[in-house]
Amino acid sequence: MSRISNKDKILANGLQVVLERGYVGASVRDIVEAAGVPQGSFTNHFASKEAFSLEILDRYFANSRAVMAETLRNEALPPLKRLRAYIDASIGAIRNHGTKNGCLVGNFAAEASDHSEIIRKRVSVIYSEVRAAMTDCLRAAVKDGELPKNFKTGEVATFIVTGLQGAWLVSKVERDLAFAENFKKTLFSTVLSSSN
Amino acid sequence: MSRISNKDKILANGLQVVLERGYVGASVRDIVEAAGVPQGSFTNHFASKEAFSLEILDRYFANSRAVMAETLRNEALPPLKRLRAYIDASIGAIRNHGTKNGCLVGNFAAEASDHSEIIRKRVSVIYSEVRAAMTDCLRAAVKDGELPKNFKTGEVATFIVTGLQGAWLVSKVERDLAFAENFKKTLFSTVLSSSN
Repeated sequence: MSRISNKDKILANGLQVVLERGYVGASVRDIVEAAGVPQGSFTNHFASKEAFSLEILDRYFANSRAVMAETLRNEALPPLKRLRAYIDASIGAIRNHGTKNGCLVGNFAAEASDHSEIIRKRVSVIYSEVRAAMTDCLRAAVKDGELPKNFKTGEVATFIVTGLQGAWLVSKVERDLAFAENFKKTLFSTVLSSSN
Repeated sequence: MSRISNKDKILANGLQVVLERGYVGASVRDIVEAAGVPQGSFTNHFASKEAFSLEILDRYFANSRAVMAETLRNEALPPLKRLRAYIDASIGAIRNHGTKNGCLVGNFAAEASDHSEIIRKRVSVIYSEVRAAMTDCLRAAVKDGELPKNFKTGEVATFIVTGLQGAWLVSKVERDLAFAENFKKTLFSTVLSSSN
């Protein structure tokens, strides 16, 4: 029991440390200090900081996947409401972790991907999965007549995923989620407006 | 002369090292090794890695400002052509520094801003300046009848600046500027299309 508990402490507190200091800036010592566990506990559970970082990335994205299931892939909602709910939930999640810490996926894209090819590839797979969910949601919007038949679902889905990543990044540096709110508002009033 | 030359070597080679390894990941030793100068030369010219990083950020953005003068602020071109030229020139500049290295401003936003409040504030000022140039360009497009009179220039300018930042970031991690090209294409065919 105590080993499992220490691992959970390392993952939960370590995620916060990595969000605050980055992949390179967060040392194993910082992580075990934040978790309140001995350094040996880290090495018992993780082969390296890279292995640990892959695990927090997977846990972070498991939350995002759950959010996507409740929003982008939630067939109980009209498609464009799913998309709005997804962005709103993502804004809430980033606020909960601290606006100044941004999005772990984006932070790893900018920094950890320079130092670990495995992390870079995992980030790329994550982007693909988000793009696929976004594309499916836009296709459903076309099918339901919320968007025109000739709407370029794949291209716009990629546009939205890249744009959101930028909105998290600018919100992080500005300490202000208004940049993400502006992205959402402008997206819906232009790209996704019925007049398009 | 030789002191000036060493400083230039440190700035040019150090920029590339910081683009490749990040603010935290690039050590002063890495920088002087890449520049082929003694470590003392770094400390002669820069009070700290932070001071050095502010200087490479300013030089990097001085190039961006020159690009903006030739594109976004170039009154010899029709306004929306200015915007297209700006994105094309930015894509070219990022390709020249290596697609995998991304945009220094975005990299610093994601990582260095966690470690230096001075750098974070400088990045914020840079974003403001780019947003202002983008807003002026969109206002000119409205004035010239390329965009409708009720076009929300400030909101869309912010949307474009955040979206471009995300497009650079995803292009970096995917090693593929197609994500930036897709951003440009979708922007012009939706947000900036005359039917809007």
